[in-house]
Amino acid sequence: MADKGEIAARIAALQAEIAALEKQLGPQVSPLAPKGGFPALPVIDGVRFAAVAAGVKYQGRLDVMLAEICDGAAMAGVFTTSKTRSAPVLACQESLATIGTARGKFAILVNSGNSNAFTGDAGWEGVHATRNAVGAALGIDAGNVFCASTGVIGVPLPYARITAKIEELVTALSPAKAEEAARAIMTTDTFAKGATTTVKLGGDTVRIAGFAKGSGMIAPDMATMLVYIFTDAAISQPLLQGMVSRLNARSFNAITVDSDTSTSDSLVMAATGKSGMAPITEASDPRAAEFEAALGGIMRDLAHQVVRDGEGATKFVEVNVTGAESDADAHTIGLAIANSPLVKTAIAGEDPNWGRVVMAIGKSGAAAERDKITIRFGDILVAENGWVAPSYTEADGAAVMKRDEITINVDLGLSAGAATVWTCDLTHRYITINADYRS
Amino acid sequence: MADKGEIAARIAALQAEIAALEKQLGPQVSPLAPKGGFPALPVIDGVRFAAVAAGVKYQGRLDVMLAEICDGAAMAGVFTTSKTRSAPVLACQESLATIGTARGKFAILVNSGNSNAFTGDAGWEGVHATRNAVGAALGIDAGNVFCASTGVIGVPLPYARITAKIEELVTALSPAKAEEAARAIMTTDTFAKGATTTVKLGGDTVRIAGFAKGSGMIAPDMATMLVYIFTDAAISQPLLQGMVSRLNARSFNAITVDSDTSTSDSLVMAATGKSGMAPITEASDPRAAEFEAALGGIMRDLAHQVVRDGEGATKFVEVNVTGAESDADAHTIGLAIANSPLVKTAIAGEDPNWGRVVMAIGKSGAAAERDKITIRFGDILVAENGWVAPSYTEADGAAVMKRDEITINVDLGLSAGAATVWTCDLTHRYITINADYRS
Repeated sequence: MADKGEIAARIAALQAEIAALEKQLGPQVSPLAPKGGFPALPVIDGVRFAAVAAGVKYQGRLDVMLAEICDGAAMAGVFTTSKTRSAPVLACQESLATIGTARGKFAILVNSGNSNAFTGDAGWEGVHATRNAVGAALGIDAGNVFCASTGVIGVPLPYARITAKIEELVTALSPAKAEEAARAIMTTDTFAKGATTTVKLGGDTVRIAGFAKGSGMIAPDMATMLVYIFTDAAISQPLLQGMVSRLNARSFNAITVDSDTSTSDSLVMAATGKSGMAPITEASDPRAAEFEAALGGIMRDLAHQVVRDGEGATKFVEVNVTGAESDADAHTIGLAIANSPLVKTAIAGEDPNWGRVVMAIGKSGAAAERDKITIRFGDILVAENGWVAPSYTEADGAAVMKRDEITINVDLGLSAGAATVWTCDLTHRYITINADYRS
Repeated sequence: MADKGEIAARIAALQAEIAALEKQLGPQVSPLAPKGGFPALPVIDGVRFAAVAAGVKYQGRLDVMLAEICDGAAMAGVFTTSKTRSAPVLACQESLATIGTARGKFAILVNSGNSNAFTGDAGWEGVHATRNAVGAALGIDAGNVFCASTGVIGVPLPYARITAKIEELVTALSPAKAEEAARAIMTTDTFAKGATTTVKLGGDTVRIAGFAKGSGMIAPDMATMLVYIFTDAAISQPLLQGMVSRLNARSFNAITVDSDTSTSDSLVMAATGKSGMAPITEASDPRAAEFEAALGGIMRDLAHQVVRDGEGATKFVEVNVTGAESDADAHTIGLAIANSPLVKTAIAGEDPNWGRVVMAIGKSGAAAERDKITIRFGDILVAENGWVAPSYTEADGAAVMKRDEITINVDLGLSAGAATVWTCDLTHRYITINADYRS
C-alpha cells in the first residue's frame, strides 16, 4: 500500500485535472432539461419583444430584452423579500403599488450580466436612466417600465451600454421574439426555460406564455430567478394579482436548489385582454378558477425547469408532505427535507438514507410525532410507527433512488396540512461551480 | 480539442479513481485539529471512568463508556430540540426533570455505533435494559443513569452486547480513564476532543474537564454531538443548570457544520463538590461569575473542536455580527451566513465573495438596512454604505481567504444586538463523505 501522503497528493492532482477538464468542457446542458427543448411560444396579442447584445458584461450574446405591453393591460407581480434586494426590485414594487392609477402602455426591461444589487446610490441612477430612456422611446411614464437586472453583484451597472440600445430595441419590437427575450435574460442557465398553454374560457380561447431564468444560484456571483408571463385573457388587475400571489406560494416559493435567496427574484405578469373575451372581474366568475388552474400549470412548469437547471443537479426531487398540523407546517417540513445537505448528498449518491429524512423532519421546528410518521420513497413504504417498515428492503429503496426523478412522501399523521416542494440533489459539480478555485 | 463526450467520460473516470483512493486513504485527521493533540485531563475527585470494546457495531475498538459520579453531585444538561429525538435523549430529560429528588450516585453510559433513534418501542427496551443493568451494578436507581447512543439510525440497539459488559466496566472504573472514555464515544470523528482548565474561587482551586464527540454529521447515517463535562466545584444544581443553559447558547448552539440537527445531541455536566470549597448557592456569590467564565471557556473550546472536525473542513470560520436590532437577530444573521452553501463554497475556494454575505444577510429574515451594513473580512473593510468600500481591493480580500482561520465581521448599524457563530467551509470532501457512492 502506498504512503498516505502520496495518496493524498495523487487525489489533489486528480482534482486539479478534473477542474481543468471541466473548464475545457464549459457549461453543459443539465441532464434534467426538458427533452423537447424550448417550446414554440405563441403570439400573445398586445405584447411585442426585442433583444439585443449590449455587452453589459457578456460579449457577443443577447443580454438585454425589452417587452412592450399594450395600453389597458393588467399588470401583476411578486418579488423577493430579501432585506438586501436590488434597486430594480424596489422600483418594480413601487410601480406595482401605484398600478391602479397607471395609464398607457407598459414595458419590461431586463439585462443579464449585472444585478445592480448592493451598488449604493449608483443602483438608483441605473434604474432611473434606463427607465427614463424606455419611457421616452415608447412615450410612456417611466413608472410604467418594470426593470430587472441579473448577474454580478456590487458592480455598478454600465447603464449607458443599455440606454444606447433602446432605440434599436424599440425598432426591433415584434410579437414573435419571445424566445430571443428568454435567451437574453439567461446567466448561468444551461437551457432557456419557456412554457405555454391555451385555456377555453366560456366560448373564448386564451393563450398563456411565459419564460424564466434561474439556475438555483450564482456564479460568478449572484444569480436570480426572473419570470415573465403574458396572456391575452381579460382579467381585472386585483384578481390577477391575487392569482399570481396564491400560485407563487405553490410554485416558485416551493422550489429550492440550495436554500440561498437572491436579491433580485422577480415575477411580472401581463394580461393584455386582447383575446376579445368579456373581462373577468369577479372571483365568483367560473372562468376565474379555470384561468387560475391553467396559469398554475404554467407557473409550476417554469418553476420545475428552474430546479431542473439547478447547479450540478442530476436528480429532480419532489417532496410531498401530508398529515401536518397546517399547510404552513407541511411547507416548513418539506423545505427542511429539500434543503438538508445530508438528504441532498444521499440522493446524489443514490443512497436510500431514510434516517436523514427523519432527522430533517425532526429539526424543522414544525409539529411531528415520531410514532405517527410514515415515509415512502415513491410507492415504497419505508418507515411507519416510529420504525423501519417490516416490508422494506434496501434493494427496494435503492431501486427508487436510481431514477432521475424521485418522490419522497412524508405523512405526519396529525391533521390535514399538506404541501409539495421541489428540489435537486447536491453534487460535486455544485461545489466545483461555486467554489471558484483560484489556486 | 477532444470531443465533449470524451471529456465528460474522462471526468467521471477520474472521480471514480478519487473515490477509490479516498477509500484506500481512510479517515484522515482534520487539518484543523488542535496541534497539541488530546489534552491531559486531570482527575476530577468524585468521578471515575471506564471504557470497553463491546462490538455494538465497530469491531476491535472502544465503543462503550461508563462514568460514575459520586453521591451529592449536582447534575445539569441540555439536549436537542429535535421532534424526532432518540429514546436515550427523552430518558435523560426525564431524569433531569426529577433531579431535585434524586439520591445516591449518578452514572453516564454512552455507546457509539448505534444511535437507538427512530427504533420504535425497541428504543425504550434498549434504554431500560442498559439503565437497569448499570443501576443494579452500582446500586443506584435506574433513573440516575444518563444514557446516550450515537451512530446508525433506525437499527435496533443490540443492547445485550452492552449489558454483557457492565460488570467489566464497573470493575475497570478509574479516575484516570477520561481519555479512554472520550475515545469510546467517537464515530466519524477524526480526533478525540477534550478540554480542561482550573479556576481559583476564593482560596480554592477547582478543576473543570470535559470531552465531546461530533463531526458536524453523519456517515454512514447519523452523527451526534455528545458532550460530558465534570468539575470538583461545589455548586447548587439550579445554578449549574442555569449556567449550562446560558453558556450553551453561546457555544454548542452557536456552531454549525451543515445546518442539519442530530436526533441525539446531549450535554451532561456533573459538579461533584469534592474540591472542599464552600458551596456556591447564590447567583450573587462572586465565585459564581468566575466559575461561569471558566466553564464558558471549556464549552467554547469543545464546540470549536467539533467545528474543526466538521466533515471535509479545511477552514475554521468565525462570524461576528454586531449592531443588530437584538441578540436574537444577530444570531439569526450569523447562522444565515454560516449555513449558506454559497458562502461556504466561496470560502472553500478562497474566494472573497462578499456579495454572498450580502445575500445571506438579506435572506435571513432579521432586520437589516442595506446602506447601514458594514462587512469586514478579518481587519479588511470590504463593504459599507450600501456598496463596496473604496479602499477595498480583491487582493486584500483574497489574502484573508488564504488563511486556515477566517473571521467575517458584519455590523448592521441598527442597534446593540450581537452574536458570534462558528462554522467551516463546504468542500468536495463533504460530498464524498456523505454521498456514499454505491455505483
